Amino acid sequence: MAPSRSALLRSPVPVERPAAVIDPARVRRNIERMVARAARAGVRLRPHFKTHQSAAIGDWFRDYGVRAVTVSSVAMARYFAQHGWDDITLAVPVNLREVEAIDELAGTSDLGLLVDDESAAQALGSALRARVRVWIKIDAGYGRAGVRWDRPAQLLSLARTIGRFPRLRLQGLLTHSGHSYRQTDAAGILRVHEESLARMREARAALAGAGVGAGEISVGDTPTCSLAASFPGVDEIRPGNFVFYDLMQMRLGVCSPDDLALAVACPVIGRYPDRERLLLYGGTVHLSSERLSGEKGEGLFGCLAGIGASAGAGANRDSALGIPDLEMPLLSLTQEHGMARVPGSEVRAVEIGEMVLVYPVHACITAHLYRAYLDGKGEPLGRR
Amino acid sequence: MAPSRSALLRSPVPVERPAAVIDPARVRRNIERMVARAARAGVRLRPHFKTHQSAAIGDWFRDYGVRAVTVSSVAMARYFAQHGWDDITLAVPVNLREVEAIDELAGTSDLGLLVDDESAAQALGSALRARVRVWIKIDAGYGRAGVRWDRPAQLLSLARTIGRFPRLRLQGLLTHSGHSYRQTDAAGILRVHEESLARMREARAALAGAGVGAGEISVGDTPTCSLAASFPGVDEIRPGNFVFYDLMQMRLGVCSPDDLALAVACPVIGRYPDRERLLLYGGTVHLSSERLSGEKGEGLFGCLAGIGASAGAGANRDSALGIPDLEMPLLSLTQEHGMARVPGSEVRAVEIGEMVLVYPVHACITAHLYRAYLDGKGEPLGRR
Repeated sequence: MAPSRSALLRSPVPVERPAAVIDPARVRRNIERMVARAARAGVRLRPHFKTHQSAAIGDWFRDYGVRAVTVSSVAMARYFAQHGWDDITLAVPVNLREVEAIDELAGTSDLGLLVDDESAAQALGSALRARVRVWIKIDAGYGRAGVRWDRPAQLLSLARTIGRFPRLRLQGLLTHSGHSYRQTDAAGILRVHEESLARMREARAALAGAGVGAGEISVGDTPTCSLAASFPGVDEIRPGNFVFYDLMQMRLGVCSPDDLALAVACPVIGRYPDRERLLLYGGTVHLSSERLSGEKGEGLFGCLAGIGASAGAGANRDSALGIPDLEMPLLSLTQEHGMARVPGSEVRAVEIGEMVLVYPVHACITAHLYRAYLDGKGEPLGRR
Repeated sequence: MAPSRSALLRSPVPVERPAAVIDPARVRRNIERMVARAARAGVRLRPHFKTHQSAAIGDWFRDYGVRAVTVSSVAMARYFAQHGWDDITLAVPVNLREVEAIDELAGTSDLGLLVDDESAAQALGSALRARVRVWIKIDAGYGRAGVRWDRPAQLLSLARTIGRFPRLRLQGLLTHSGHSYRQTDAAGILRVHEESLARMREARAALAGAGVGAGEISVGDTPTCSLAASFPGVDEIRPGNFVFYDLMQMRLGVCSPDDLALAVACPVIGRYPDRERLLLYGGTVHLSSERLSGEKGEGLFGCLAGIGASAGAGANRDSALGIPDLEMPLLSLTQEHGMARVPGSEVRAVEIGEMVLVYPVHACITAHLYRAYLDGKGEPLGRR
């Protein structure tokens, strides 16, 4: 018997325009699992709040005892400080043009900053009146920001520069091994994890050998944090995306289809059954242009939600969001239009003006386009 | 003698965070040229305002006699109606979920809507109390929305359905031949243009042959409108992107480097001279993930501005925005970071905290991320 495929799900939320919809039960389960994982590994969880940017969702983390957070902009740090978070790491190399706003925040919050450049450390140390924690950003193989782990002289010089400024307290070494996203399976992700941790320990040992206490090690990206069982030598982890997960994580094998907790409700504005296409009011400005590569190298910009009836029982199968169905992919996006491939029989059954759900490729980037989330019943949750 | 390459330009605008900067002189020149082109071809120019979404820039179009506009959302239509525009085409197949807002707008503005589905026409005709103009959206080869040009029976049936509702007045046939963007040179773009126009005339003739006056023909995309010398049978054109142009248009051969009128000012937050990299505070949320393919199929997410000293004289070479320099490409973007390849000597000359300018791949999508533009002197221009 051929496997029955899922039917196209209609959005549970009646709205006029594209809207970001979350499943609170899935979000809480994702949080609970990562909290448990961090506890088992004996590391502090400092989740990256750039993914959801929501004080309401932040409160759910508090329910599980989380007290420290990561953000990626000064504005985000200010927002969460206003909502009662006072242990905040701003995990982008410091933008010196915002030093006044940073100084103000550091006066009321326990603020951590990233530095990988001596002149930036000097400028920061000279300008600030408030004290901050400073993490030396390490490039452990990703090749984006950071001092390379295998340049001990450069590392030592930077650590000593930081040490000369009384307002700067060296908290430790921090990395983001984003090259885990370039892997194609769990084994590859775990190789990145092990290599990256070994390099961080090597960097800390080099400083210790020169008599400089390097403090803590902070790592974190959702793929490695979702899959790795242990974090030897690590003090804290900073995953972010796991709160919603998305198609990118699903393809990496990092989560299950029923872990995806964010989708975008989109009105149907065109039906083309002969060519098996559904046109959605939902384009780049509603979903972002983040893409995966399809089987033939073509772009894959999301997929529609199916009801998942054939996929087995369980509370999360019954979510108002259904489950992502890659057999109904979003093939192209323009500014306001999205084109989905959907079986002709399903296309014929849809009315213009009905709403479907699109699962995004990259939840953080899509979520950033909205000012609020709706839960499965249409109740709004505020965000920055 | 080897051609001298341009040096890295510093942003003329002192801001703290990434900001969208335009060159008003270039914008006005782009408008003036398209106005002249439409006048020579004897067609109405109904520019697509989704690109800039700015009442201030809209006023510059008024200076050149433009009175009719195109938008891509109800919210955009409302914004421009509030700023004195009353001849507005909403060029996305109608979203029936917004029919109340549409009805309200149609009560005070001369509003044009797009329809390609009989049930949508019926729903619209039954729900509206105000009169609207209706364009039948035609698919002339692009394969996104519309009734195919070569299906006269379907076309005729839709036209007759529209004719049955007194609130709907059939204005004509409209297409967007977005497959011009898939071409690689001017010849290909002009082939799309000629084929598309022939198909639109064929569709109109089919209706006329059945005794239904199909009215006007409206076409428009920036590549064909920028290159074609004539528009036989066409009543109006609706290009949008030309107001700013961008790297995508430049690569298509549709504009010159010194026509690009929008860039994003980004602070430098990291310098890596050994690997010829500059890290910018400017990521997907500031630039969008729109991409071109580089020479080896890698993503190209923008490029830095050079001062263009070697490129010759002329007022537009002296713009505060410089000119795009594809030798300094943006190689990768994450949520808040952008990584540019820049010659090591230039990297060494930059200070952390200085600002550079990034030319975007797709100006419409990048512009949508901002609430205002700054001109080259830092004065803000409001937008929706």
